[in-house]
Amino acid sequence: MSDKKIPYKIYLEENEMPKQWYNVRADMKNKPAPLLNPGTLEPMTLDELSQVFCRELAKQELDDTTAYIDIPEEILKFYRMYRPAPLVRAYCLEEKLQTPAKIYYKFEGNNTSGSHKLNSAIAQAYYAKQQGLKGVTTETGAGQWGTALSMACAYFDLDCQVYMVKVSYEQKPFRREVMRTYGASVTPSPSETTEVGRKILAEHPGTTGSLGCAISEAVEVAGKSEGYRYVLGSVLNQVLLHQSIIGLETKAALDKYGITPDIIIGCAGGGSNLGGLISPFMGEKLRGEKDYQIIAVEPASCPSLTRGKYAYDFCDTGKVCPLAKMYTLGSGFMPSPNHAGGLRYHGMSSTLSQLYDDGLMEARSVEQTSVFEAAEQFARIEGILPAPESSHAIRVAIDEALKCKETGEEKTIVFGLTGTGYFDMVAYEKYNNGEMSDYIPTDADLEPGFASLPKVGK
Amino acid sequence: MSDKKIPYKIYLEENEMPKQWYNVRADMKNKPAPLLNPGTLEPMTLDELSQVFCRELAKQELDDTTAYIDIPEEILKFYRMYRPAPLVRAYCLEEKLQTPAKIYYKFEGNNTSGSHKLNSAIAQAYYAKQQGLKGVTTETGAGQWGTALSMACAYFDLDCQVYMVKVSYEQKPFRREVMRTYGASVTPSPSETTEVGRKILAEHPGTTGSLGCAISEAVEVAGKSEGYRYVLGSVLNQVLLHQSIIGLETKAALDKYGITPDIIIGCAGGGSNLGGLISPFMGEKLRGEKDYQIIAVEPASCPSLTRGKYAYDFCDTGKVCPLAKMYTLGSGFMPSPNHAGGLRYHGMSSTLSQLYDDGLMEARSVEQTSVFEAAEQFARIEGILPAPESSHAIRVAIDEALKCKETGEEKTIVFGLTGTGYFDMVAYEKYNNGEMSDYIPTDADLEPGFASLPKVGK
Repeated sequence: MSDKKIPYKIYLEENEMPKQWYNVRADMKNKPAPLLNPGTLEPMTLDELSQVFCRELAKQELDDTTAYIDIPEEILKFYRMYRPAPLVRAYCLEEKLQTPAKIYYKFEGNNTSGSHKLNSAIAQAYYAKQQGLKGVTTETGAGQWGTALSMACAYFDLDCQVYMVKVSYEQKPFRREVMRTYGASVTPSPSETTEVGRKILAEHPGTTGSLGCAISEAVEVAGKSEGYRYVLGSVLNQVLLHQSIIGLETKAALDKYGITPDIIIGCAGGGSNLGGLISPFMGEKLRGEKDYQIIAVEPASCPSLTRGKYAYDFCDTGKVCPLAKMYTLGSGFMPSPNHAGGLRYHGMSSTLSQLYDDGLMEARSVEQTSVFEAAEQFARIEGILPAPESSHAIRVAIDEALKCKETGEEKTIVFGLTGTGYFDMVAYEKYNNGEMSDYIPTDADLEPGFASLPKVGK
Repeated sequence: MSDKKIPYKIYLEENEMPKQWYNVRADMKNKPAPLLNPGTLEPMTLDELSQVFCRELAKQELDDTTAYIDIPEEILKFYRMYRPAPLVRAYCLEEKLQTPAKIYYKFEGNNTSGSHKLNSAIAQAYYAKQQGLKGVTTETGAGQWGTALSMACAYFDLDCQVYMVKVSYEQKPFRREVMRTYGASVTPSPSETTEVGRKILAEHPGTTGSLGCAISEAVEVAGKSEGYRYVLGSVLNQVLLHQSIIGLETKAALDKYGITPDIIIGCAGGGSNLGGLISPFMGEKLRGEKDYQIIAVEPASCPSLTRGKYAYDFCDTGKVCPLAKMYTLGSGFMPSPNHAGGLRYHGMSSTLSQLYDDGLMEARSVEQTSVFEAAEQFARIEGILPAPESSHAIRVAIDEALKCKETGEEKTIVFGLTGTGYFDMVAYEKYNNGEMSDYIPTDADLEPGFASLPKVGK
């Protein structure tokens, strides 16, 4: 189809929206390594996993053979409230960069959670409700996941208990207030409400918390509360499954106009957005139908793919969760205090880790001042103030578009714009005031994290 | 068309988007009263107005006969980046309320300014650029207008100087930072940078500012700076003209599905959203083609339509602006300190004032705790955290839907959801903590404002 016919924004019609999620593991020859029981070091069984997650979600976590899974009607109904997300042609950015590249972004920020996290939150809340649970517990760092989950729980009238990393709780009171408006209870972590929290507080009295620590608290509370389960917004196979809606919609929108991307770019923290965006494209690649250049972008200050080890590791600080094989900096790794925004988890989705290890995708790390530079440029030209996390993908998309300018190649670039930065203005202020700095850990800086890796064979 | 076919969200195709604004004044038999020169008390001429506004905007301000005005291509291009705004069918809200009413809302919050204000900001910035100006000055209260204007100016590479009401400047540092990210300079008002600011500070040393005062400062600076003009986000005829894009899109979306609304509801501060939303519907009403119940909703604490006087008044505290005939509480009116959110201007658009005076629309005032109750209910059911301003319309839409439940009438209700409340979490927190109260001014409370009205004949 002629280039001129492509609108600024492609919205799928309601009847064109995907009705199934796609499970990329079904097409992987090398399956992601199983979660291990931290006590026995044996693969977690369905029954064991069902103690932590809802049974249906535990099933999804273990299912690496079913390619397509029906999205329940109740979830489709909720999706219709805020989806489809637009696939936007960045005409203004292309013009400003004077690049022959064609740039598209899938914008997931047009909902109150401000990000793609809602796609999995509503699914996890639905299955919890179906199982007759009273509520769920979770952790949140930057707050996007906690907000998404509180929205989903409000919709299904489920109790929602969020452990929020203390530094974020204090620095982002507005995020906390959004969660409260949706009826969630929010506790700064580490807290006195859990054994693991009290232990961490005793050992590190002044600590401002970490994701790994908040996970431990949320898992402990779910385990001890009748009718509760723990839910997680990234890393897990089930989350990538739900997030495949991003990639499926993107692909449907591209197919509608006969567009084939050359490069697909996503930011990567735990992998929820990247995994979701690339799933159907990776499926084609795995089946040998098409080839795409797929790029994961991570912060230079938290470089799990580019500098981590591929090993079994703890998912949380308190070591109460199953072990996962992943590219990891070690559960003892802490991002430097000057690291702004999310993408600060020490490990990476097992599925993405395996795909990366198999050479099916690339990874790049970028420094945060260059990320905020791209963010500001994008905001001024395309009119959307992006989340710091999303801006990692913007950075590399702009870099690739500028390469096309050099070479004259008319590549088609698609990137994931996961969310908006409205609750990240403290970081923007730092950047606006010229007070933001970069930090790349030395090899020595990474040693303590690697030393925290468990001694578990392949 | 069958009810079942109506999607959750109606998006116009790019080629269905309006290419002209509609000027409701052209169809009014009783035209809005002209702006008066504060010195001579004669109607402002084009030349006089062009000293304050860009010439093209001054023309639009005075033009009460041209019904349709072409939207310049550059503005259409920008509109395509964030428009069309969806017309959403509130299926979930209807279900929860168990009402036979059909509820639709036009959602203008899916852009970084968080509101409909961008529709006029981009138009005003465009004409300033066309005229070869260096920049523009303006005031902002809650910050939506200032943000919108800074985005528009960044797009056209214009300097943008914002006078922000001091209390908002201090309470909403994140709004300020968004404006700075778009390159605007933001000054808390009243300030020492202007004569009028210094005068007000001398008279009221502890003042936290007001819109009327910030307007005076912005107008003064524009007048004294070579290559600058003042721009305003509401009240003016030109703003209603640009905002007619809201109503035109709404009408096009409704027409596409053969839907005729019975009731149209909008919140009203200066009138920019309400005027824009109702314009094409009011046009039909004025031409005797159709009838609609049109309801303006305002805060009980700032009741210009329901309790104001229809008179010529100053638009600003410093009395440097032209006089406008409008429903007003007097430029000396100050909303009570417990008033949260926007909709705090003392007067109302001359166009809307005339339409209201002619009995072509109704007005209702609502108290803020009931507004936040509606806001929270809406957020939990429809998944969008609304701006406090927009929630005034939600309140009355819910009230009308509940009346339909009583009577069994299947009315079609359309309301304007002007924006999101992401930068209003201080107010939400107050509500969540049960610390919000209502305040309805007594007649005696309104006296000082009325006493400040100028002695100007009809």
